[in-house]
Parts: sequence; structure tokens; C-alpha cells
Amino acid sequence: MGGSDQVGDDFEGCFEGLAAIGRDPAGGWTRLAWTEEDRAARRWFQTEAEARGLAVERDQAGNLWAWWGGAAARDGALAVGSHLDTVRGGGAYDGALGVVGGLVAVAELARRGVAPRRPVAVVAFADEEGGRFGTATFGSRVLAGALDPAEVLDRTDQAGVSLAKAVQDAGLDPRSLGPDPDRLASLAAFVELHVEQGRGLADHDAPVGLGTAIWPHGRWRLTLTGEANHAGTTRLKDRRDPMLGLAAATLAARAAAAELGAVATIGRVMVEPNSTNSVPGRVIAWLDARAERDQVLDWLLTAFETAVGDAAGRHGLEAELAGESRSPAVAFDRDLAAKVAGCLRGGGLEPVELPTAAGHDAGALAAAVPAAMLFVRNRSGTSHSPAEHAEQADCLAGVAALAAVIEALACR
Amino acid sequence: MGGSDQVGDDFEGCFEGLAAIGRDPAGGWTRLAWTEEDRAARRWFQTEAEARGLAVERDQAGNLWAWWGGAAARDGALAVGSHLDTVRGGGAYDGALGVVGGLVAVAELARRGVAPRRPVAVVAFADEEGGRFGTATFGSRVLAGALDPAEVLDRTDQAGVSLAKAVQDAGLDPRSLGPDPDRLASLAAFVELHVEQGRGLADHDAPVGLGTAIWPHGRWRLTLTGEANHAGTTRLKDRRDPMLGLAAATLAARAAAAELGAVATIGRVMVEPNSTNSVPGRVIAWLDARAERDQVLDWLLTAFETAVGDAAGRHGLEAELAGESRSPAVAFDRDLAAKVAGCLRGGGLEPVELPTAAGHDAGALAAAVPAAMLFVRNRSGTSHSPAEHAEQADCLAGVAALAAVIEALACR
Repeated sequence: MGGSDQVGDDFEGCFEGLAAIGRDPAGGWTRLAWTEEDRAARRWFQTEAEARGLAVERDQAGNLWAWWGGAAARDGALAVGSHLDTVRGGGAYDGALGVVGGLVAVAELARRGVAPRRPVAVVAFADEEGGRFGTATFGSRVLAGALDPAEVLDRTDQAGVSLAKAVQDAGLDPRSLGPDPDRLASLAAFVELHVEQGRGLADHDAPVGLGTAIWPHGRWRLTLTGEANHAGTTRLKDRRDPMLGLAAATLAARAAAAELGAVATIGRVMVEPNSTNSVPGRVIAWLDARAERDQVLDWLLTAFETAVGDAAGRHGLEAELAGESRSPAVAFDRDLAAKVAGCLRGGGLEPVELPTAAGHDAGALAAAVPAAMLFVRNRSGTSHSPAEHAEQADCLAGVAALAAVIEALACR
Repeated sequence: MGGSDQVGDDFEGCFEGLAAIGRDPAGGWTRLAWTEEDRAARRWFQTEAEARGLAVERDQAGNLWAWWGGAAARDGALAVGSHLDTVRGGGAYDGALGVVGGLVAVAELARRGVAPRRPVAVVAFADEEGGRFGTATFGSRVLAGALDPAEVLDRTDQAGVSLAKAVQDAGLDPRSLGPDPDRLASLAAFVELHVEQGRGLADHDAPVGLGTAIWPHGRWRLTLTGEANHAGTTRLKDRRDPMLGLAAATLAARAAAAELGAVATIGRVMVEPNSTNSVPGRVIAWLDARAERDQVLDWLLTAFETAVGDAAGRHGLEAELAGESRSPAVAFDRDLAAKVAGCLRGGGLEPVELPTAAGHDAGALAAAVPAAMLFVRNRSGTSHSPAEHAEQADCLAGVAALAAVIEALACR
């Protein structure tokens, strides 16, 4: 009883401390990777971890590891955690919940006199969102050798700053970034606690659920080139207006996703010259699409390309579709999932199984390390938005489940 | 013969001098009002006018007037000219042709020994395009008392600089800007030479044409508010995606314009948060629409609003349409048009009559001063674009027509 109050207080204080960093005047939180806000969050992590007796180190990929009892990586270690960065104008829970939850769960176990028999780390992965350089799950993929930093260091943000420069400004040597196979090999498991980003648990009336898979996911860049022209004097029949191609693309993405039970989004657009009295000369739009299986994602893309090609032909546009990234389907480790499900049942919770269409550090690590995910209910399902919310009781149920997992996997 | 070569050389040198200012590395010309490029163009105007013996002064509205023979405004004066500013990434001819044409026509008349019997001015109007602050035909409307500068001085450009600050930085006192009714009353006529911004003259196989009217024209701002959300985890049925509203608006604008023989354009869009993996929370789009008659423009707007309202209802969006500006139809002065047509016939040209859907300084002045327009053929019809082009022979035919008009109206 007292213990539960203490966990609640610890959670609230720890969560509020991180939530104080990167409030965006335009709404929500903006802690983009390698910014001043991100550095403040990383300093916050070090302070909070050390206050709980954890020793913090940084790996080759820029991720922070806080070791329980001052231990360091060695065979059979258990890692938990998530990330500190956000999208632009994102919510308070995405990433933060898993890091705060890990710190609070370890502290609660220590308070109860539980001692680790294997090394336990709370990890804060670098640049999970990719909101600044388009490099989602950067830290976990570099760690796992799935992303070569050299291939992305010259990418620039909206202000023209390169990733290399941003990493350097954040106090790291960009040339030193790389995989850490020994560390990875020492891990027995990684478990990520995360706010749910849909309404699956709300529909199931469950506070906590178990991730079973991550849908395959791709991003494509569509460049529609027409001809810039005067908005008043150019007859409709003389126009080559790429906005008409964008309209067709938006509707085609929606229709294909609806037919295939997938999701597809055009959420980012650049219009040139973007002037009220000009027919645009060029529109660039980004398609984000995810489906249950890789083949379904292929079908979706084919339908999209066909519709865009038709519209381009009708309106005299050139259309170019370029892949920016594609992640295959991830199925989480069955043995680990069974153990985590057992912990949920032990706490009186039904282990509701949820596939997710979001990318996560757990997904990036899953090819190299047994990985699992715990989701916390998000009643509105809203995420990547200031309105993202999880009730504190549900967050604490997630923390309790995570503590049970740490106890079961590393303290017996 | 020799004279014609001299006009050609003078035109080419003068035109190239202005075209050297404000080349945009991204293509075309960017001489936005009250910028360093605009100041350079105004200095160029002063130098070129003085080299031709014209005396330059600035009026209350920030426009430059170059008086032939050093005269100043007095009753019965004739003004010709256009503007020096461009849209972002615009063409070399829009505005420039009328100013260069005026300077070259006056110089040619002087070379031929023709002397003005009434005052003649070549005018460079300030901020015709409104490309920086959304204040199109600023100089001509302020001059005519049709725009109160105090109502727009706090508008800001994309960098957050106010119009008041920009005017001040350009060396003018923003508080001194205002109408100049005496100057206006002294004008017998204003004639603007301008590159055609459509293909009317190309279709008529004529190098020069006569403006008869300016279509009514309006700009509206459409705000579509949905809910920002995660692009992967938000089910289609849970989305309130304003991009679907934008697609409907784009198609509705096109369909209504096609049905009504009008033009409608969505050329400027703002997407928030404009992130690849977020369903946008808000899209703002600007509608530019023009039609032959005010009633047709009303019909177009009604059709657009209905379609957008339907889409908003279907997708759970709030839609708000706000008028930003509306200009009524302008019919140019018939007597003046008949005189200009006579000059064209005298030069062996058929006075092809062209209504235009573009706003012009001549249109802004037409309510207060008899005004007319001469258009020069633009074979592709492209304008507000780096590809805007008029052949030099056609430009010289326009200059010859303008010189004939000046001679007929002010030198006899």
C-alpha cells in the first residue's frame, strides 16, 4: 500500500521532470534528436539514474545505458527502456514512458530488497523518432549494425544542419559512431514498455498488453513536377498543376489502405513556389504505409503508383516515386513473449496480444536479441500529438508489469 | 532602320540591366518588395531614368515617377509604366517590360525630336505582386486611396519581419505612406505595357494586344482542422485527416472552375506538423479564383464551399473559409481604349482585345484615372515562372506601340 504510493510518487516526479523539457510553444513536446532539448533530456536521464544508484555509460551508437547496482554489460544481461526524443509537437508518453518506467521499476525492486542476479540496464536510445533527419530508430539500428552512420551523416535538417554537425554539437564524435556487437551479444533480452499508439487496449478494456509483432513499414517520396504558372491567366487546359496529382495521390493512398486493411498516410508535403497566385511547379509528398504482411504492402504500393501514374498522365505531370526506407515485418521472440505473458498473468492481467504498425527500438533490435514489448492503454489512441495520454493508473500497471518482468528474468 | 536598331540596342541594354538584379539561385527572379533586391532595382530605375534626362521623384505611396524633360505632375499629365518587383522565382518580363518599355519609348521619341506638350511620367509602382506581405498592387492602391497602409503595416513576411519594418529598412517612413489625390487628379491617363500572362495573343497570332477588362478576383484562406495522430497506429476509421479535405478542395476548385469557364487555384499550402509519420492535425490552403463576372465568382465559391463542407463532414474535420481579398471587375476606359486602338492600327497592328484575369496597377488606378493596357505576346503563356518569355521583336512592337500612344496623347 505504502509501496504503491511510493511508486506512484516516484513515477509522477520522474515523469514530470522529463515532461518539463522541450515543451513546444506551438503545443506538445519537441525534443528532436541532437538538439539542446535532447541534451537536456539526456542530462536528466543521467541525474535520475544516478539518484537511483544506477551507473550511466554511453555505447558506440550514442545510446545511454544505466546499469543497476553499478554493473556493466556481461553475458545474460537484461535491458529495458525506450527513447527520450519526440516528433515535432509530439506527446508526453511516447518513449518517455518506457524510460521513466524502467527507472521507476528498478528503484521499486531495490526498495523491496530484490537484488539483480544478472546485469540489468535501463536504456535511453538515441533518435528513435527520426523527426529531424529522417533516421528513425537510429540508435538501436546503429547498435545492431543495421544502419551504417556514414550513409546518413550528410543528411540535413530543415535549417540545413547536417547530422554529422548535430552529433558533434551534442558532444559526440560522429566518426566514432558504429555497431557494438559484443554488447549486443551479451544481452539475453530487451523489453520495451511503451504507450499504445492506437485503441486496441481501450477496445479490450485492458490497461496493459503484449506486443506480438511489428507490421512491415515503408516510406516513399513522391515528386510531382508540373509547370509553375500564373494563377489568374493560365487557362485550365494549359495547366500542368501538380496539386491535382497530390489530390489523386492522397485519395489513392486512403482507398488502397482501406481495401487492404492497411494504413497509408500523406503527412508531409512541400509545394513550390507555394504562392497563392501561382500554379505550383512542383509538389513533393511523402507516403508512409504499413500493412500486416510485406506482400500486402507491395499491393498497396502498386495500387498507389498506378493511380498516381494515371493522374500524372491526365494532368501532364512527371511523377517519380522513390523509396526512402522499408522495414520488414518483425515477429517478437515467442519464448520471451510467453515469459512476459506469464508475468502479466501473475499480476492479474490478461496478456492481450497486440500487433503494432509503429516502428520501435525493440523492433530494430529483434533480429539480434530476443525482444518484447509491453503496451499501456491510451484511451483515445492519439499519439504523435499533444493530445496523447495515458492515465496514471494504467502507467503504474505498466510499471508493475515491467518490474515483474525484470524480477522474473534477472532477479531469480 | 538605324532608329530601330538603336531602339533594339537601348531596349536590350536596359532590360538586361534590370534582369541582372535579383536572379534567384533556385531559378528565375526574386525581387520581393522592400528587400535589398527591390532597393537595387529602384536604384537602377533612378540611374536609367536620369541617363535619359528624366527627373525622378517618389510619391506619397512609395512609387517612383520619372518625368520627361524634368517636368513634374500638372494637369493633363500622361503616365506610363508598371512595376519592378516580382513574385518568388518569377519571370524576367512581368512588370519589368512596362518600366523598361516606358524608358525606352520616351528616349526614342526624344531621339526623334518629338517633344512633350503635356507632362509625361514613367512610373515604377511599389509592391505590385504582394509576394512578400500579401499586399498586391500596394503602391497603386495606396496612391488611389483604395488601401489604407495602417491596415497592413503589421503584416509579417515568412521571416517574421513586419511591413512597417521592411518599409523603414528600405529608407521610407512607413507613417508617411498615404494617398496622393492631387497627383491622381492631375493625370489625364495611365497606360501600362505588360507581358501577356496567357496565350490569347499567341492564339490570335498578334504581337501586341489591347486590355479591355480585368476579371473579378478573390483570395480565400481555407483552414481544415482534424487531429494530429500517429501514421502507423491510428486506424483509418479513427482518423480525422485534413489532407483528405485538401484533396477534396483541390478537386472541387478545379471542377467548379471548369464548369463555369473560370480559373481557380490552390497554390499555397501549410501542413501541420508536416511530418512523414504523422497524420496532420491541420492544413491551411489558399484558394485563388477569378471569373468573367462577379456573379460567376460567387457561384464558384458556393460550389467550392459545398464540396469542402461535404468532405469535412465525411472526415470529421472543421472547415473554415475566410476571405482575404476581393477585387471587383474592372472595365477599362472606352475612350482611352479607342485612342490606343487607333495608335495600334496606325502602326499596322490589329488591336486584338483581351480581357485578363491578372491584377495590375492599371486596374487599381482605373476607378480614379482613365487607364489602358497594352499586352505583348507570350508564346507559351507561362508567367510567374522562370520560363516566362516574350520574343524581342514582340517586345519592340510593344515599345513602338507605347511610343505611338505617348506621342498621340501627350506630344501633339
